[in-house]
Amino acid sequence: MNAPGVLVTVEGIGGSGKSTLARNLAEALATDGYPVISSREPGATSLGIELRRLLLDPTSPTVRWAEAFLFEADRAQTYDELIHPAIMRGEIVVSDRNLYGTIAYQGFGRELDLDLIDSMTAAATRGLYPDMIFVVDIEPKIGLTRKLGQDEADRFDREKLDFQDRVREGYLFAASRDAGRAFVLDGQKAPEEVLTEALRLLRPLLEQKGLDKSRSVR
Amino acid sequence: MNAPGVLVTVEGIGGSGKSTLARNLAEALATDGYPVISSREPGATSLGIELRRLLLDPTSPTVRWAEAFLFEADRAQTYDELIHPAIMRGEIVVSDRNLYGTIAYQGFGRELDLDLIDSMTAAATRGLYPDMIFVVDIEPKIGLTRKLGQDEADRFDREKLDFQDRVREGYLFAASRDAGRAFVLDGQKAPEEVLTEALRLLRPLLEQKGLDKSRSVR
Repeated sequence: MNAPGVLVTVEGIGGSGKSTLARNLAEALATDGYPVISSREPGATSLGIELRRLLLDPTSPTVRWAEAFLFEADRAQTYDELIHPAIMRGEIVVSDRNLYGTIAYQGFGRELDLDLIDSMTAAATRGLYPDMIFVVDIEPKIGLTRKLGQDEADRFDREKLDFQDRVREGYLFAASRDAGRAFVLDGQKAPEEVLTEALRLLRPLLEQKGLDKSRSVR
Repeated sequence: MNAPGVLVTVEGIGGSGKSTLARNLAEALATDGYPVISSREPGATSLGIELRRLLLDPTSPTVRWAEAFLFEADRAQTYDELIHPAIMRGEIVVSDRNLYGTIAYQGFGRELDLDLIDSMTAAATRGLYPDMIFVVDIEPKIGLTRKLGQDEADRFDREKLDFQDRVREGYLFAASRDAGRAFVLDGQKAPEEVLTEALRLLRPLLEQKGLDKSRSVR
């Protein structure tokens, strides 16, 4: 796919620091003058906000496959409404979580069929694949202590440790499949260090793509 | 699959009379003393009621694949919460719409990949397939005149006639794939005639299954 924009996704378990990195990345790129759009999964569209509520509610009884289908529905809507148009306009999209989440949480965590997940994701994204993927990796025990301490743990954060271990393994598996475009960053480092490392990896790609720095959208 | 219960689904375009047949069938079987549960798609569970609202709203901007994923999510939840348990208890489930809807509306109407739809449906249903399927067939022009006259047309009823023609073709395609267990009934006949025909086709299956008539759940 030779689209003019750049899709950057930031992935990782709860408490890894992925949302902080996504926010810091978008801010740093905007400060540089790049046109940047922030996205997230789930919940970047009006449909997605309703699905996010259904998905993350700690009391939700949603069964395993329903969960996977709802994440893919959110993804299809986000790619169509937000990501495809921004990429076509030559902008950078930084997504706080994206397609690795379904591989990690539903494929590895819930142990659902990965081939079917891959096929659904290809349909949902209409074949647009992230240009660069950062997996912020951390021991689930450390990440979840951060998260549960903040009292904002969702229903995935509240799953048991063996579930979290499988999810982490899923993220590392996904990154190993995407060698060359996926990078595992150490979530125990300070946020500024993680950001510096991500920017060091990303900048050559942005220069190679020749994005127009004068068109900041923020 | 040698489950003790019987899953009967009633399918068809808006205004075909499928909901009337589903209701009449459930009532007739309950009167006979069979244990009968009514289901519908979408919206048979508490998750499904929320999804039904998102899906049928005439102003909904939901994109094609998001639509397919949401119907499958509803289906996964319904099969898990309602259909599997009832079938395991040896009851009859009569569903007002079921898996043919995704083939007809999303596969044929929206022209999405049928193989992927079939794979998703197999996952959502965990391989439980309807024992008998009634497609209530009617010319879209006639069905939709009924429906739009009742002022309860949803966003699928409001699609153009060429869409409705593809949906009807999808239902007939699905029935032809399931020759022997799927039957096309004439939706222009009176509701009592359609019911009589459906019962004539269904009764031998119920007798063969040896369902216990003394356990009515209604």
